[in-house]
Formats: sequence, structure tokens, C-alpha cells
Amino acid sequence: MMQETKFLIVGLGLLGGCSARRLSQLGHSVCALDVDEEALSYALREGIIRRGAAYDAQMVHEADVVIFGLYPKTMLSWLRLHQGDLRPGALLTDVSGVKCGVVDEAQSFLREDVEFVGAHPMAGRERSGVRFSDARLFRDANFLITPTEKNTPQGVSAVRELAEILGFSRISVLSPAQHDERIGFLSQLTHVIAMSLMNCNDDPELAAFTGDSFRDLTRIARINDKMWSELFLLNREVLLRQIDAFCEEMQAVKRDLITQDEADLRARMQRSTARRAQFDEGARAR
Amino acid sequence: MMQETKFLIVGLGLLGGCSARRLSQLGHSVCALDVDEEALSYALREGIIRRGAAYDAQMVHEADVVIFGLYPKTMLSWLRLHQGDLRPGALLTDVSGVKCGVVDEAQSFLREDVEFVGAHPMAGRERSGVRFSDARLFRDANFLITPTEKNTPQGVSAVRELAEILGFSRISVLSPAQHDERIGFLSQLTHVIAMSLMNCNDDPELAAFTGDSFRDLTRIARINDKMWSELFLLNREVLLRQIDAFCEEMQAVKRDLITQDEADLRARMQRSTARRAQFDEGARAR
Repeated sequence: MMQETKFLIVGLGLLGGCSARRLSQLGHSVCALDVDEEALSYALREGIIRRGAAYDAQMVHEADVVIFGLYPKTMLSWLRLHQGDLRPGALLTDVSGVKCGVVDEAQSFLREDVEFVGAHPMAGRERSGVRFSDARLFRDANFLITPTEKNTPQGVSAVRELAEILGFSRISVLSPAQHDERIGFLSQLTHVIAMSLMNCNDDPELAAFTGDSFRDLTRIARINDKMWSELFLLNREVLLRQIDAFCEEMQAVKRDLITQDEADLRARMQRSTARRAQFDEGARAR
Repeated sequence: MMQETKFLIVGLGLLGGCSARRLSQLGHSVCALDVDEEALSYALREGIIRRGAAYDAQMVHEADVVIFGLYPKTMLSWLRLHQGDLRPGALLTDVSGVKCGVVDEAQSFLREDVEFVGAHPMAGRERSGVRFSDARLFRDANFLITPTEKNTPQGVSAVRELAEILGFSRISVLSPAQHDERIGFLSQLTHVIAMSLMNCNDDPELAAFTGDSFRDLTRIARINDKMWSELFLLNREVLLRQIDAFCEEMQAVKRDLITQDEADLRARMQRSTARRAQFDEGARAR
């Protein structure tokens, strides 16, 4: 990205805010559109953005790179409504956690002279909003780019460069379908588990008796219900399959307990131990 | 505990090692029995214990306080075999993660002139053994004492004092049955979940695509299979009930996805968010 590249953040939430912060730190011109006036005035006060508005056609037209920090459906509506204001050659990218039905959908109606490259910065917090944004959130995090046959190598390279500038430590390219399959497992199933664990026991005194395990497994039970229900429903077929595979494994442990099959129980524990060790090595390898 | 109080650790693993470290730091005389010569020589070299042996009747007889860091069944065998060597008035306590079938069992055959008070220091690591012990592991951790009608107020007070000396931040007293019910949920169910999540997907490339959620939920999938299978089977009836309650909640989420019931899905997310927030407050209150 050249120093003169002008960035527009549409949807100044947590991830949009982190991106704006980092790009401004690097001296880029960053503007933002958001319907939340308080988010904009906070960002202006903090020097995270140069200008902000609910909508401003001129601002849209001036942007070389537009980063959408909106929920998927809101982004699609925005694009349908405002794509006419984009400048020819503009590069568009997003942060949303589901790609099928989003990237292909956007590309199906988008003007030919702009390029949308789907992306998913794998970073988050239990709190949303620009006030909780922190450019350090991206460090050591994974960044996924999900191009389709409609994308150009130049567009994909530009988004990779953006991810590097934003500070992500590992950048991977995969198809929208591969993305949704993996995210359905790694991110969505884990949230279903955390919610279910938190909801299946209403003992109010648990905190006095807990070790780290329960605390770690339910950290993400604090969940933005509007965003996550939209993501779950967009990826429901994958997620349903992942829930089934997980529950089948739980049932297998249950059978071992019923039949007191210590050998099989230990074999399962040894398998999970070996896999988690392998996972740790993979994580260190980056 | 008086400065002259003599401690004996039987089973110098992670928790026995942490206890020995802390008590030695405070200037107490700490000896240890373990069949693992390397563990003993490591502990002697590090100055964690004063003397060590596989077995030494004199050492057992000299101990005022005996802390068992053994697995439950091994501890019961040890007690049956060696209780004759204990000095009259000795205080015995343990660290094991299940209490029913352990505390009552020990008390059923133990000499009348010694006292066994069940305890569970809620601290652990993914690695076992004295080499990974660290006295700081107990800071900010919970300590549970599980007396029965066979215990004296003096015995319970002494174990509470021991927990304070060891550095635990919150000490609770509850019955063995209450303990097993809560631990079945907070600790055992969480381990079943972590194992099952790790085992239900064999994609070797997951590490490249993960955020923090999967990493947090599978940290405890690295599990000591010998110890945990013993604990699971000792508490199997409680654990089976907890697995059922959790899986029922997972199935409810699944139904919401199938019927695309966004309102109910969001209600579940709001519930888990509120409960986790309440849990955080409970944890802060200590």
C-alpha cells in the first residue's frame, strides 16, 4: 500500500476500529462511516480516523480501499444501495466470519470495475465496539483470505499486503467453502459448546469452586447474540454437521463410562493429548 | 502450623511438589516418599525436600502432617498397608479430584487415633511431575475441604490453615457429595468436552486457521489418561448426568438451527452472556 492510499472503514466496530487505529498509526488517511455517532466522535477524539459520517458519497468516492466491518447482511444491503458511489478500481474487503453466501453474493451484483476480496481476520474480544479496539489484537493472529474465480491475483496480493500492514502473523488463502468448513468447527462449534456449557447448569455459586478449566471453556460464552446468530444461520448446514460429529464423540465417552471401559477411555485421552500436542507444534511453527 | 511441624509428602508429583516447595520455602521440615527415584533426587537437588525414600517407616512415624499426592486408589492401598507406622495424632490430607468412595473409604478402615481430612486443591497443569511444580500455581486458586461426620473441627481448621499457608486465595468447605457434583460439572465434564472436541476432527492443518476459541477450549485436552480415567470412573454416575444435561443443551441449539429460530438462538446467547458475566463477578468477589 502506498502512503497516499486512502482507506474507508464502513462499520466502525471492534475490528473496523482496530484496523483504523493501525492504519492511522502508520500515517494513512482513514475515514469511517457508521450510523453510531458516538463511535465516530470517540474515534475522531482518539485520532483513529480523519473524518466520519453516517453516510457521505464523496468520502466513498475518494476511497482506494474500503474495509467493511459490518455484519454480513448489512454489508450486502449497503453494497446494493451505495456501490454506485465507489470509484473505479476501488478494492473492497470485509471481516465477516462466514464466506459462502456472502462473498459470492456480493460478487454476483457488484460493478465490474471494482473488486471485492473476502477476508476474515481471526481476532476478537468478548466486548464489541470501537472503544475496545486495540491495534495489538492483530499481533500473533491468523488472517484468512477467501478469493473466488472472480478475483484477480492483484486484488488478492493487495489484501495480503493489507493483512501484513495490519500486523497479522500468519496469512492463509483458501476457498470460501474451505473457510466455512473450518470456521464452522474452530469458531462456531466452540461458541455453541461454550454457550451450552454455561446454560446447562444454573448453580450460582460455581465461581467459588472452579479451576481454570471451566473459566477457559466459557470465556466465549459472552457472545454478541445479534452477530453470532446471523453467522450461525448463514453457516447452519456446516455447523449442524460439526455439532453432530462432536456429540457423537461425547456419546462414545459416555458409552465408555457406562461399560467402565477404562482401556478405551484412556485410548481417547491419549489421542486427544497427542493431537493437542501436534496442534501446539503447528501453532509454534508459524 | 507451628514451625516445628514435620510434613511428609507421599507421592511427589505436581501437587505434592508444589506443596513441598512452598512448605520448604517457609522453613518447614519436609520429607517425601515416592517410588520414582528421579523425582526424589530432583527434589533433593532443588532443596524442596530434606529427605526422600521409596518407603521409610521412621519417616512416616515422625510426620505430624501427611499430604497424599497419590491417585485415589493408590492412596487407599498405601493407607491399608502402612497406617500402622503413622504416629498417634497425625493429620492426613489429600489432593484427589473425587471424594465419594475415597474419603469415606479411607475413614472406614483408618486407625481411630489419626485423622484424615479430604481436600482438593483446585490447581493443575497440562504436565505432571515434580519438575513442573511451582509454588505460584496455588495463588488465586480455590481450595476445597470435604469433611465428613468422622472429622473434628480441629482437623478441619488445621487443613484450612495448611491451605492458607500454601497460598490459596479462597477456601471452601463442602460435603464429599457436593464436591463431586460440582467437580463433575466444572472439571470432569470440561475435560470430556475438550477431549471430544480435539478428537472429533482430524484435520492436521487446524492450527493455521484458528483463533483463540479453539485453543482455549482444547488446552485441557492434554490429559493424564491414567489419573483422569480413574477420576472419571470413580465419579461416573455424576459425570454421566452432567454429560446428558450438556448434550441436551447442545441439541436445543441444534433444533434452533434446523428450524432457523433466530429468536430462541439469541435468547440462549443472551442467557449464556448474562451467566458468564455473573460468573466473572463471582470470581472477582473473592
